[in-house]
Amino acid sequence: MKSPRTFALTVAYDGTEYSGWQVQPGRKTIQDELEKAARPLAGCRPDEPSFRILGSGRTDAGVHALGQVARCMMPRWPASPQSLLLGINSKLPEDIRVVSIREAVDRFHPIADAIGKRYQYQIQFGGDRSPFDYRTWHRVVKPHDTGQLQRAAERLIGTHDFAAFQAAGAPRTSTVRTISWSRWRLADQHSAEKWIYEVEGNGFLYNMVRNLVGTMLEVARGRRPVEWIDEVIASRDRKQAGPTAPPHGLFLCRVDYPDELFLSSN
Amino acid sequence: MKSPRTFALTVAYDGTEYSGWQVQPGRKTIQDELEKAARPLAGCRPDEPSFRILGSGRTDAGVHALGQVARCMMPRWPASPQSLLLGINSKLPEDIRVVSIREAVDRFHPIADAIGKRYQYQIQFGGDRSPFDYRTWHRVVKPHDTGQLQRAAERLIGTHDFAAFQAAGAPRTSTVRTISWSRWRLADQHSAEKWIYEVEGNGFLYNMVRNLVGTMLEVARGRRPVEWIDEVIASRDRKQAGPTAPPHGLFLCRVDYPDELFLSSN
Repeated sequence: MKSPRTFALTVAYDGTEYSGWQVQPGRKTIQDELEKAARPLAGCRPDEPSFRILGSGRTDAGVHALGQVARCMMPRWPASPQSLLLGINSKLPEDIRVVSIREAVDRFHPIADAIGKRYQYQIQFGGDRSPFDYRTWHRVVKPHDTGQLQRAAERLIGTHDFAAFQAAGAPRTSTVRTISWSRWRLADQHSAEKWIYEVEGNGFLYNMVRNLVGTMLEVARGRRPVEWIDEVIASRDRKQAGPTAPPHGLFLCRVDYPDELFLSSN
Repeated sequence: MKSPRTFALTVAYDGTEYSGWQVQPGRKTIQDELEKAARPLAGCRPDEPSFRILGSGRTDAGVHALGQVARCMMPRWPASPQSLLLGINSKLPEDIRVVSIREAVDRFHPIADAIGKRYQYQIQFGGDRSPFDYRTWHRVVKPHDTGQLQRAAERLIGTHDFAAFQAAGAPRTSTVRTISWSRWRLADQHSAEKWIYEVEGNGFLYNMVRNLVGTMLEVARGRRPVEWIDEVIASRDRKQAGPTAPPHGLFLCRVDYPDELFLSSN
């Protein structure tokens, strides 16, 4: 009898049509679609509740992913990881794709073992509203200063207590996180309208990226000076920060783990 | 009392969620959404059947537009064309947008007056299937030769009888059309996978662009030599051409009219 095998799936999805990552009764979710696709391959009954695919973290309704990571434990899987990827993809809807797969050690835990994450947030400043962009671009029509936006982003780099940027009602034991990368870039050299915020850190609080973006936008609009960012951080008070930016501009790009959690065979 | 005014709307839409352009009972269509949005502005009852928005031509289910043109006749409209655009857009779903508006002469007819159209067809050759591209890119996994694709496209330029590329059951009085532009280009300098076919002519038969693309793909796959294109044209027989490419790669980009049909005030 073969022993169970543990796989780490890297998953991309357009979150527009889903009520977020996490399984909820009566709702369409990413996790549920993945479990439905993989469950028959695990040799489980279609309604077997013990078969679970665990993600590195939840994403909210409307949030997208380029590189969410999820653990899939297969009681028996006789073939290669790549054939498991193909098997799951053949059963997934078109707005969810497993983009790569690695076999992991038995003790691999996608939440506890994550050592870093990267997100991006896409904003179109002004310009026409395109019917092809509304799912993945947040459109801001008020005047803004992208220089100030960049300076605001730089102030977030470092180890800080980010309690002010955590959604109410989602307390963590510690709200200290380290941000190692935080900057805005033009999405396309040919257009001055579309900007992408890239942020990387060792972990993020619930709604943190959307709250950081909403706060930076206050500065870009000239409603606050860039030094105000420091005051908001120091306050540790959610009420001091800017509003939460909407979900549809946000992408979970990458989740990092120590290399030794993956088998070298792949 | 003000006299009726005639407007030409340039409309962009993501056709994925619609049963094509044309109103059909019990189906969601682009025309129906536009009429629902504009009808109250025309002072009509919400169910007034005589209020119609006429397009330059139908697009099929799943086909997109960057520049469909449609005529909107307003029994009374006291304000600027731009304010009509804003009024209609405020009531449209996010996957349909009026991108510009011109006031036209009373006799403007969007079908009969069109002197040219441009379409594009988007294909991804190989590579990963992205959850963000499936609505607008046709993905082809078989090996192909893009040089042959380009040579096939060049052979379509000129005045030909395109009867072989017309969908069955859609006869026109004349099937002779002139194609003035027909070429493939890389969508993005950084990727060799994504190609866009651009075709411009004085008119197109029903399903003609999708049939041209399906036929060129036969050549690109090495199943036919490039000279076969000439034989298919000469045959005037739909059965000789390649299969119809799927709708979701196709965009109606532009419809051209003589300038004198539009009022100079705009």
